[in-house]
Amino acid sequence: MKGKPVKHFSRFLFFVALSLATLSLTLGQTPIPSNYDSLAQAIVREALGSNHSYALLNDLVIKVGNRLSGSPANAKAVAWARNTMERLGFENVRLEPVMVPKWVRGNVEEAFILHPDGKQERLNIVALGGSIATPNKGITAGVVEVKSFEELRSLGAAAKGKVVFFNRPMDRTLMTTFAGYSGAVNQRGRGAVEAAYAGGVAAIVRSMTTRLDDVPHTGGMGYADTVAKVPTAAVSTVGAERLSALLKEGKNIRLQIKLSAQSFPDVESANVLGELRGTEKPEEVVVIGGHLDSWDKGQGAHDDGAGCVHAIEALRILKSLGLQPKRTIRAVMFANEENGLRGGTAYAAQERLGEKHIAAIESDAGGFAPRAFGVSEPAYEKVLAWASALRFVGIDRVQRGGGGADIGPLMRKGVPGLGLIPEGHRYFDYHHSDSDTIDKVNERELALGSAAMALMAWLVAQEGL
Amino acid sequence: MKGKPVKHFSRFLFFVALSLATLSLTLGQTPIPSNYDSLAQAIVREALGSNHSYALLNDLVIKVGNRLSGSPANAKAVAWARNTMERLGFENVRLEPVMVPKWVRGNVEEAFILHPDGKQERLNIVALGGSIATPNKGITAGVVEVKSFEELRSLGAAAKGKVVFFNRPMDRTLMTTFAGYSGAVNQRGRGAVEAAYAGGVAAIVRSMTTRLDDVPHTGGMGYADTVAKVPTAAVSTVGAERLSALLKEGKNIRLQIKLSAQSFPDVESANVLGELRGTEKPEEVVVIGGHLDSWDKGQGAHDDGAGCVHAIEALRILKSLGLQPKRTIRAVMFANEENGLRGGTAYAAQERLGEKHIAAIESDAGGFAPRAFGVSEPAYEKVLAWASALRFVGIDRVQRGGGGADIGPLMRKGVPGLGLIPEGHRYFDYHHSDSDTIDKVNERELALGSAAMALMAWLVAQEGL
Repeated sequence: MKGKPVKHFSRFLFFVALSLATLSLTLGQTPIPSNYDSLAQAIVREALGSNHSYALLNDLVIKVGNRLSGSPANAKAVAWARNTMERLGFENVRLEPVMVPKWVRGNVEEAFILHPDGKQERLNIVALGGSIATPNKGITAGVVEVKSFEELRSLGAAAKGKVVFFNRPMDRTLMTTFAGYSGAVNQRGRGAVEAAYAGGVAAIVRSMTTRLDDVPHTGGMGYADTVAKVPTAAVSTVGAERLSALLKEGKNIRLQIKLSAQSFPDVESANVLGELRGTEKPEEVVVIGGHLDSWDKGQGAHDDGAGCVHAIEALRILKSLGLQPKRTIRAVMFANEENGLRGGTAYAAQERLGEKHIAAIESDAGGFAPRAFGVSEPAYEKVLAWASALRFVGIDRVQRGGGGADIGPLMRKGVPGLGLIPEGHRYFDYHHSDSDTIDKVNERELALGSAAMALMAWLVAQEGL
Repeated sequence: MKGKPVKHFSRFLFFVALSLATLSLTLGQTPIPSNYDSLAQAIVREALGSNHSYALLNDLVIKVGNRLSGSPANAKAVAWARNTMERLGFENVRLEPVMVPKWVRGNVEEAFILHPDGKQERLNIVALGGSIATPNKGITAGVVEVKSFEELRSLGAAAKGKVVFFNRPMDRTLMTTFAGYSGAVNQRGRGAVEAAYAGGVAAIVRSMTTRLDDVPHTGGMGYADTVAKVPTAAVSTVGAERLSALLKEGKNIRLQIKLSAQSFPDVESANVLGELRGTEKPEEVVVIGGHLDSWDKGQGAHDDGAGCVHAIEALRILKSLGLQPKRTIRAVMFANEENGLRGGTAYAAQERLGEKHIAAIESDAGGFAPRAFGVSEPAYEKVLAWASALRFVGIDRVQRGGGGADIGPLMRKGVPGLGLIPEGHRYFDYHHSDSDTIDKVNERELALGSAAMALMAWLVAQEGL
């Protein structure tokens, strides 16, 4: 596209405008004051103009980096979040301690394909979070490849003594990458258990991404008390394709896997809270948050540095515009989403006398351009009526069903949940891997996520839900 | 976000659904057959599943690379487009020759800040397309910084003998980057003329991007017959900030600029055409296209390799689904958008007896995730009625006012124009610079752009416009 001004790009006459006016009447909603449209635009100007979101994320990733629960970096992240909220002048900044798991990857994680002629071929792997170690000399065994637990079970004794290789790709034809992830991630979560039931000695799983590259992606997994624990790791998609091709050729190969991971007793971490206190109903609370922990790969920039920045920045933007909400808006940096959900669980379990949570809004799907909010059922129609203002921050869809892992425990207590849904096509290219670094985050897209969160928090704080 | 399936992401209950049903009735549109929804989903599956868009773009950038009008690479690109359409089995694949400008950057483009103490400090610059060269020894002069032509004019004789430095940034607070671009790009297009009127000896302009980095961005500019031609170049935003800071400090600095650019007589290039012939009204034509030329920096991946891929791939997708349109769908790879618009002009000027163009659809805003279509006025309401199907390919907005530079000449002859509007926040990070390479294109986002173009071409071919 060349140098001429392209005027039509600056027009904002969307097809939803007329239809939403109609819809509001249809649903019998109270018409929303048109000044929410102006407010939305002011929020966008502040978010984009200050570019503070990117500065904040950069501060987190250069001062702390990744921050797995139980690690020294995680403790630094807690201090960073408290200091940042205090520096920005939030009210009632405080920690709510919570015990979290401590799992340490250690220095060794490697795998080699051993060819019959003695050739060794490296596979890029990462231990899955929670995996046990292999013996020091590693595990060396043949490999059986399966696409599903059903297929594994149908093999009978054939998997006995073998490394079980789960290689069902995420379905790349689905419009939402999260749906593709949901359809494949049971291999990672339960692969070790199923491998052990089949008599396998280890489990490796194709990384959860539609991208072909040589970067493996970690993530959570579980063991069962009823069966042996076997070590488990993810292999890059390039490695998975290579291994699968060799197996299809009928090559008599074996795998050697070494992992040094260890679990330790729980350690103390904390949820970090800060507020804009409500002027009319301070006891009614809108929670807005992301999770402060990350996996121990890359920088946890999209997952979930972006969500933490979104929540902190939402409050900062409102504050900088001189806005004081009717109800209290509370930013919560949740502890330990990735491997325990202890922060979200503890937050919801905490007795809070005289307080009522009216909604919880989570950002945990990356720092990309905002496109939608998912909203849990009872609140759906009310949020739908805010669509006119929401489209000024790039939110074109309001979907039924929303929330996020951290606010799940609150939602199960009846609190309406909302989840920010950014553009998702790149999310799993980086997720839980060394690729999740700040250079993958665009400063404008990150800022608009903050704007979307600020507007939604404000609408809920003013209008209730 | 962790390993648990997140079911709400796979739901597609959008807020527009009910409202659009209402709206269609309001506007008295013929209800669209619901099978366009299914078709849209099938198109998405084919686009994402085959991943052919990315393969095609990679083929273009590795075999051809960037492809400025008049260059040997541009001739290779023409051959590539014809061969590709023939290989894919399009009908009536042909070239329509068009004479295009030939401007050659040459090997020298450099600038140094000369400090009073003899220190030299490099500035990263690129000649603007069409600029004349400096003398071999360069131009060395003091610098005057302005933010607007008005400011320059108000300086009177102060700019005489100086390098005029246009340093008004794109407005980063605007939601659409294209609006920010429109508000700043006159400095690039007309800076040399205004500098010359003020008695300046050269013009340098801050690169057209909101990103701070050290990569300069080229682009088109013009001279006037009524005033001297002075050499002109763009400086990176990092360089612009540095230079501005030194000037604000009152440093007695000078700039040395060397450019070796040259213009040559026009050479022959071509528009490249290929079709799916209509079964019922083959004489009615839907044009779908992008421009094949690019600037001579990076790979022209987003601008406009992506648009070329979108158009070719749209036809391939429809063909692969066994669909034969009622009206003819014609892919056009336009020549010379960047520095002359000769291809679009020639295409519209060509007499085509017995043919009627019913619409022209352009993709020239990058290979990012599709979000909207801009539609010229008479066609707006009809396209609006297709919103239900369009949202399955990620199109959430239909905006009044659309098209693109290449189809502008057709539109001025009364043909309705449509322009694909992808997510635009990253576009100017790469635009017209060494950064516009295929690694900045996400394969899923590119494929969905193709899906959006395929669906729109099909709807117009079946329903008219």
